[in-house]
Amino acid sequence: MAGSSFGKIFCVSTWGETHGRGVGVVVDGCPAGLSLCEEDIQRYLDRRKPGQSKFTTKRQEGDQVEILSGIFEGKTAGTPISLVVYNKDQRSKDYSAIADIYRPGHADYTFDQKYGIRDYRGGGRSSGRETIARVAAGAIAAKILQEMGIEVFAYAEEIGPYVIDKANWNPALREENVLYMPDAQAAEKAAAYLEEKMEAKDSCGGVVGCKISGMPVGIGEPVFDKLSAKLGQAILSIGAVKGFEIGDGFTAAKSVGSVNNDAFYNHNGHIEKETNHSGGVLGGMSDGSEIYFRAAFKPTPSIASPQRTVATNGEEREIVIKGRHDPIIVPRAVVVVECMAAITIIDELFVNMSNRLD
Amino acid sequence: MAGSSFGKIFCVSTWGETHGRGVGVVVDGCPAGLSLCEEDIQRYLDRRKPGQSKFTTKRQEGDQVEILSGIFEGKTAGTPISLVVYNKDQRSKDYSAIADIYRPGHADYTFDQKYGIRDYRGGGRSSGRETIARVAAGAIAAKILQEMGIEVFAYAEEIGPYVIDKANWNPALREENVLYMPDAQAAEKAAAYLEEKMEAKDSCGGVVGCKISGMPVGIGEPVFDKLSAKLGQAILSIGAVKGFEIGDGFTAAKSVGSVNNDAFYNHNGHIEKETNHSGGVLGGMSDGSEIYFRAAFKPTPSIASPQRTVATNGEEREIVIKGRHDPIIVPRAVVVVECMAAITIIDELFVNMSNRLD
Amino acid sequence: MAGSSFGKIFCVSTWGETHGRGVGVVVDGCPAGLSLCEEDIQRYLDRRKPGQSKFTTKRQEGDQVEILSGIFEGKTAGTPISLVVYNKDQRSKDYSAIADIYRPGHADYTFDQKYGIRDYRGGGRSSGRETIARVAAGAIAAKILQEMGIEVFAYAEEIGPYVIDKANWNPALREENVLYMPDAQAAEKAAAYLEEKMEAKDSCGGVVGCKISGMPVGIGEPVFDKLSAKLGQAILSIGAVKGFEIGDGFTAAKSVGSVNNDAFYNHNGHIEKETNHSGGVLGGMSDGSEIYFRAAFKPTPSIASPQRTVATNGEEREIVIKGRHDPIIVPRAVVVVECMAAITIIDELFVNMSNRLD
Amino acid sequence: MAGSSFGKIFCVSTWGETHGRGVGVVVDGCPAGLSLCEEDIQRYLDRRKPGQSKFTTKRQEGDQVEILSGIFEGKTAGTPISLVVYNKDQRSKDYSAIADIYRPGHADYTFDQKYGIRDYRGGGRSSGRETIARVAAGAIAAKILQEMGIEVFAYAEEIGPYVIDKANWNPALREENVLYMPDAQAAEKAAAYLEEKMEAKDSCGGVVGCKISGMPVGIGEPVFDKLSAKLGQAILSIGAVKGFEIGDGFTAAKSVGSVNNDAFYNHNGHIEKETNHSGGVLGGMSDGSEIYFRAAFKPTPSIASPQRTVATNGEEREIVIKGRHDPIIVPRAVVVVECMAAITIIDELFVNMSNRLD
Repeated sequence: MAGSSFGKIFCVSTWGETHGRGVGVVVDGCPAGLSLCEEDIQRYLDRRKPGQSKFTTKRQEGDQVEILSGIFEGKTAGTPISLVVYNKDQRSKDYSAIADIYRPGHADYTFDQKYGIRDYRGGGRSSGRETIARVAAGAIAAKILQEMGIEVFAYAEEIGPYVIDKANWNPALREENVLYMPDAQAAEKAAAYLEEKMEAKDSCGGVVGCKISGMPVGIGEPVFDKLSAKLGQAILSIGAVKGFEIGDGFTAAKSVGSVNNDAFYNHNGHIEKETNHSGGVLGGMSDGSEIYFRAAFKPTPSIASPQRTVATNGEEREIVIKGRHDPIIVPRAVVVVECMAAITIIDELFVNMSNRLD
Repeated sequence: MAGSSFGKIFCVSTWGETHGRGVGVVVDGCPAGLSLCEEDIQRYLDRRKPGQSKFTTKRQEGDQVEILSGIFEGKTAGTPISLVVYNKDQRSKDYSAIADIYRPGHADYTFDQKYGIRDYRGGGRSSGRETIARVAAGAIAAKILQEMGIEVFAYAEEIGPYVIDKANWNPALREENVLYMPDAQAAEKAAAYLEEKMEAKDSCGGVVGCKISGMPVGIGEPVFDKLSAKLGQAILSIGAVKGFEIGDGFTAAKSVGSVNNDAFYNHNGHIEKETNHSGGVLGGMSDGSEIYFRAAFKPTPSIASPQRTVATNGEEREIVIKGRHDPIIVPRAVVVVECMAAITIIDELFVNMSNRLD
Repeated sequence: MAGSSFGKIFCVSTWGETHGRGVGVVVDGCPAGLSLCEEDIQRYLDRRKPGQSKFTTKRQEGDQVEILSGIFEGKTAGTPISLVVYNKDQRSKDYSAIADIYRPGHADYTFDQKYGIRDYRGGGRSSGRETIARVAAGAIAAKILQEMGIEVFAYAEEIGPYVIDKANWNPALREENVLYMPDAQAAEKAAAYLEEKMEAKDSCGGVVGCKISGMPVGIGEPVFDKLSAKLGQAILSIGAVKGFEIGDGFTAAKSVGSVNNDAFYNHNGHIEKETNHSGGVLGGMSDGSEIYFRAAFKPTPSIASPQRTVATNGEEREIVIKGRHDPIIVPRAVVVVECMAAITIIDELFVNMSNRLD
Repeated sequence: MAGSSFGKIFCVSTWGETHGRGVGVVVDGCPAGLSLCEEDIQRYLDRRKPGQSKFTTKRQEGDQVEILSGIFEGKTAGTPISLVVYNKDQRSKDYSAIADIYRPGHADYTFDQKYGIRDYRGGGRSSGRETIARVAAGAIAAKILQEMGIEVFAYAEEIGPYVIDKANWNPALREENVLYMPDAQAAEKAAAYLEEKMEAKDSCGGVVGCKISGMPVGIGEPVFDKLSAKLGQAILSIGAVKGFEIGDGFTAAKSVGSVNNDAFYNHNGHIEKETNHSGGVLGGMSDGSEIYFRAAFKPTPSIASPQRTVATNGEEREIVIKGRHDPIIVPRAVVVVECMAAITIIDELFVNMSNRLD
């Protein structure tokens, strides 16, 4: 495949450009017998919808999902599930000004060089709207996981210089502030920081954290398909992600073995770990502890300040990106991270099913 | 596949346990016509061989590679290349003491839970010896890349708290110190730090950096097979890696758009970037700049200090790992990172070949 | 993947049920730069459309294709091409009578056993309408092949007992008779035979032949992805196909080496074969001769005569399939065979691109 | 992958040339906990070993398999199983005469054109010795199937013009005659026919039949990975196979629906079929009846009679193949067919495991 599919058994194939007819996904390999309706998917899509706060683009999109196949009498039938979200607010005219120019930090130049052709209307396939397909598929994965008692929970962990404080951790807060930050104080400071950046016609980056609870032990395939490696691919495939850590990540690189090793102990007949520096993955397989990983997002490349760049013909130019863009990607990316994690976990669970005879 | 294969076209399938007959790899999809002999591969294997300094395990292994197929009259024939390194120093007896115990920080527990059976002799398939197969395959990938003018160069960037200073950067130094650190002063301090850790029966972590030069623009497949995502999977699949960054990575998350965006300019008719915060990847495709990524390695889990743990029957125990182990994985992992990067790059180059009609 | 995708590089993922919202396909890996419009695809779909002769079902379907993504300014952009054909004539009510019964020769029973759930409205995913997606994708493959000078030509070779006579072979006739038989006399007899079968409320089988000209030498991958093996999978994956032969096929099994071997000779500086018993494939790779294969189709299982069967609860029943069904699948399957062959060939051509350095 | 791997979960990757160091296979995805020793595999290899009758080549090969990995204390450990058979009787000198000539019916010409290089010593990778790897892997698949109550039984069904008579069918006879024909009379006539062909310095073709009993219902994935389609690919990937039929195959193409449809009935509470024209596959999934398929083998291309051909430089030549070759491939191919079927079935069984929630 040419890069638009992910998953060996629970296989997700996405399509669509930001200013084309729409965006969609085919989910092949979803087990039969799962209750599934459009509302199950819509709930996830609504979490990444634009126009919900002052920190997101004003583009008007209902982002209504339609199920085109794979469901019979309210249940998955084992056949491919085709989902589509038609684009409404295409406004192609807005983009004619950037047709012959390479926006810094965007994929314009690389697309042109790779394919010799590029849909210049707002990024085409490299637009953030591509993630609609990931979220739609991930909503299905998350629903199966829930039936298995596995919960994936992502959130904004850092926005610019503001990091959540574990002492203030309150998952319920995630839904209560537009930044999806489960720490009220950090969220408040981050919001002020974002307003400042917007005023300065600038943008900023941040970090999404993700916790997965309820995992059985032993999920993930040695050698190349370690759970950490597949999660890494899944998360790093999201546009704007520049880093991935599991457990202590780069901090572990500065630690010592006597600290970083998680001691095992017997907790009422269950083997557990006293600490979780590993982030729930040992030897590439889930170790029964909570899985914890972090994804670094770069600042939104679309900024309203003037930038130096070149035109497609090589001429040097100055560019000012018009329209209002999200000053930070993180809040809307939270659900995308959650969904990519869910897709990865469900696929590894299915691959694991034939790992022993019994 | 069950996780022991990597690459869509240049496909690498590895096998072998640390105390079995040997370790090997089948490389399918290597183009015909490449001059290749055992010496080409041995040179890479020698870089990860144990017993070369006081900072590596004393295990005696020649790690001599044999080519079993795929070469005809000194050239690759287009058929699968089978490579084997037979184990010499198996010393299974040393390991009987740990047969019924789960070493902290190792994959013992997760292997047992996944498969219901585990080769307890030194980690079996999760041993560092598994990387022999990666290096053998990577040596072939690197040789093809060299013919294309692409060079992959990995090195130790951080050892414990010691980070190389860009001002002292000297790639030639990599081969001159046993730590593969291209900064003489940092290497010296790191060596002293390691001796201290060894004396304390402890270990430490570090960071491997990797630079790839000579890349054409547009390599990497949107959406899920972005170059950064596939490199991420490749590197995170190496045992002990807990984090991956491309370009500014987690630092970008704290930056702002006006700084993090790399401005394009016209350099004597070529489009280039003034800075390289992106690490050579834009929109998941190579952008013509040097590719730069970092991998975080956790401290070696095998330490000679006593640790709390449990036996396979759930009993709590204290364990002291015998034998001498590398106090840090990083120096020997440098070539492994380089080889996994080479395999990833060559595969993406081949996948890219059909991306346009002309 | 769970069986709805085909092709390693030119990767086709289909979805849809006969009485759902529609049928579609995502084509990932189509090279950029191909001129493509809906009419290019519609032309192929029209060849399999129902209701075009007295020998096809009366179901009224326009089968209008819509391109939802992947095209920019009339050319493929290298991104996934999503195609959909919405169903119009769903008439679910007609099918309620067969909801609790297993039709002989159909997939009702196996679907129910596999998934525990089944879309009983006309076969669901196992309906012939699933082939719409194959044809839509195949039309794109065929267009690329044409630009490379490769032509795939399928036709009805046998209908019931009537076989085309090579002496009467006239490819232009294919479009002139509703049976797609390039032999006027055989077509006439076959038509009379079909009318007889319809009157008897019975159906019959036949054979589709396929010729591929213009192939370069060496396409197809040893060992498991031989051109003949991949064509075999592609064709045998079409519903109702029970046999596949390449070249002399089962006749070769009764031949002797001195006859079956095709002698090479030098034809004005080109190496050619005096005969083509091989059907254009030697050692699993194209040998430069015309590729020739045959596909055996079983009789349409839907017949209006009473048949013995069982209900889903195990009760024995008699069933009479209502509605008018194609008395033979072959004429409408011709274009499906052609399209599956085109998809296979283009994929193997792309896979072959990295087979040598030069 | 480049064609040397087969299977999505039970994944088999083969390597090796007839006159290289040896032939081998890596089996990834074999479940843990299967008792397995070299003798289990050797028993299958012995069935395809040369030199066992006057109808096989005299090449002296012990074909002793060695297990290099994946087994711990007599059981599979869930890790890749690496198997190797080293070549003994290489006799490269015999082949120098054919280094610059294209043997009719062989892959010499296509290999040269594809790769620009060719191991001319006896066919290299396209030699029949490549099937050693298939048989070694298939022996493991067959052992797992046996534990599940599934038996795969292949045999010689036709040799030249001699077909087994169902009335004489006696599976025990398969092991009693060197032709593996379970009909004593047919075997006798076939043996005489073969002697005649050998005397005439000619060869002949034949058909291998295969029956699979004990299959659960619903195995095989719609749409492209139908059980019949994957069996087709598996069998057509064996060198010299030119045709594949399941159930009535090409005979079904001449049948009518009222005969070809297998009526369902209730057999003591189980749903069964009165006939088995389908060959045990309906809609691409196993239907609970015995699976039955046939593979057509062309005559051995190596014959001692003079043949016209060309040299690599285009010169026309006459060639006489020296050495003694099998006058027919079928008897030694029986176990190869059986093994490829076993690999296919086990893989589809594993893929099926996640098909429903319950």
